[in-house]
Amino acid sequence: MTRIALIGAGVVGSSWSFVFARAGFEVALYDADLASAERVPAFVRTAAASFETLGLVLPESAETIAARVKPAKSIEDALAGVDYVQESVPERLPIKIELYRTLDSLAAPQVVLASSTSGLPASAFTESMATRERCLVVHPINPPHLIPLVEIVPSPWTKLDVVERAQGLMLRIGQSPIQLRREINGFVVNRLQSALLGEAFRLVEDGIVDAEEVDRAIADGLGLRWSFMGPFQTIDLNAKTGIAEYCRNLGPMYHALAKEQADPRPWSDELVATIEDTLRKRTSAADIPAKQRWRDDFLAKLVDFKRR
Amino acid sequence: MTRIALIGAGVVGSSWSFVFARAGFEVALYDADLASAERVPAFVRTAAASFETLGLVLPESAETIAARVKPAKSIEDALAGVDYVQESVPERLPIKIELYRTLDSLAAPQVVLASSTSGLPASAFTESMATRERCLVVHPINPPHLIPLVEIVPSPWTKLDVVERAQGLMLRIGQSPIQLRREINGFVVNRLQSALLGEAFRLVEDGIVDAEEVDRAIADGLGLRWSFMGPFQTIDLNAKTGIAEYCRNLGPMYHALAKEQADPRPWSDELVATIEDTLRKRTSAADIPAKQRWRDDFLAKLVDFKRR
Repeated sequence: MTRIALIGAGVVGSSWSFVFARAGFEVALYDADLASAERVPAFVRTAAASFETLGLVLPESAETIAARVKPAKSIEDALAGVDYVQESVPERLPIKIELYRTLDSLAAPQVVLASSTSGLPASAFTESMATRERCLVVHPINPPHLIPLVEIVPSPWTKLDVVERAQGLMLRIGQSPIQLRREINGFVVNRLQSALLGEAFRLVEDGIVDAEEVDRAIADGLGLRWSFMGPFQTIDLNAKTGIAEYCRNLGPMYHALAKEQADPRPWSDELVATIEDTLRKRTSAADIPAKQRWRDDFLAKLVDFKRR
Repeated sequence: MTRIALIGAGVVGSSWSFVFARAGFEVALYDADLASAERVPAFVRTAAASFETLGLVLPESAETIAARVKPAKSIEDALAGVDYVQESVPERLPIKIELYRTLDSLAAPQVVLASSTSGLPASAFTESMATRERCLVVHPINPPHLIPLVEIVPSPWTKLDVVERAQGLMLRIGQSPIQLRREINGFVVNRLQSALLGEAFRLVEDGIVDAEEVDRAIADGLGLRWSFMGPFQTIDLNAKTGIAEYCRNLGPMYHALAKEQADPRPWSDELVATIEDTLRKRTSAADIPAKQRWRDDFLAKLVDFKRR
């Protein structure tokens, strides 16, 4: 059985544990707080059991999957016999820098060191390492046991072979990896989200529609096609002969809109409060945890529905 | 039985025929080309039959639904006994202006005149009408028999009562209407699409990822949650206490990204050709019609899945 090491047993590391264990990997899980790591097998058992409850396909029983996740007492123990490490420690630069300094000397040279960071480029915490060419970002969209997409982002010194190994591993465990050709702020996913959110906040701030209407414009409109085709395939199929025809007809309109939308604004506290008021009519503060469980169940069913 | 009039029997008018007939309305359908109008009952029968084939819920048989759509020989015939007109003629200003001049005198004063236009504000083709206060835009996301969202956009002179009647009718026929408070270029849906597409094209032009990877970043990532929650609810549920916490933590990052993204670019022919090449590896030009049918079937199943 192949074995991998996870470092960091928070929300992201817990979800990764399920992903790797579900794919048949033995997971050695280290966290500076041993008690956190020791809670993860139960999390995996519960998450897998909820898949079973929803009638979704799992390769093995929740028990079998959860039994593959083994808390490790030290980083050295976690690293024994692995050739891939997925790090998911808190998003603070000093913590990452110190951990990668430790891994630099402790992990055998062929071991890939992948960070789950969503906001820090690998260059920011690996520059001074002797073995920095085996480091990169492998960023999941949380939680990875429900959302397949993974962003693979090399630093300027990451070896191509390391990128390819990460890509192969993500495919093998059933995720959907994309490979960024170079580091860029926000990577791809948060840049796309930023563009959409920027316009969404402006529409509410300018009094055109409220937050609930923006949500429906996407959830009952554009988001339906985006959830199984993405934005390019959507417009490609919106003209008889494909995307070139679409862009000939509508490119000038979109360029004119883009000029109006080149209007970066901070999200003011007042604006956020207005949006929050609208959202709280649908979900009260007390109902957020229940709504999060509803979302996770729906995501699991939706991904299952798409696979059928 | 309530009766409504549709003017224009192209792709949009045909789909509207299905929507209204499915909701139990008798549909009087006029097109300057009578033969086009005469083809629509068969379109509705086929579309409804494909719902039946997919095992989706329809209130009545495809035959019964299609039998409610009646081609009209003249605008006068179409208008007899209706209090709502949904116009879906070609998106050319002179055509709209002439038609609305005709409707101004032919339609009884209490009849609402709603345009399906996606690009023209109602003010552009109703300004000189004597009865312009009963005109507005009721813009479907095509095709409306598969996608529930409708944008209701008043002109500066549309009466509030007319907006409310359009809103009530859309709810009654099972669509999901949003009400723009005033006219704005691109309305809401195309502005949101513009923001996302602008960044998508830039990411490909800058060599970060290819079009297939952008599509997966959405379809296997962000688009999953957007398809049932929209962008605001998505971020609201991505922090323990909701959107205010999310914006406190990530607002500065999004503002920094927004400044980088204030970069409106035309979509060059070379860039579009590059993206087309990538898309054609997945769907050849000859396969576009089949892929469009696949999309429509998937949309129908997805909307049905969400309703359960």
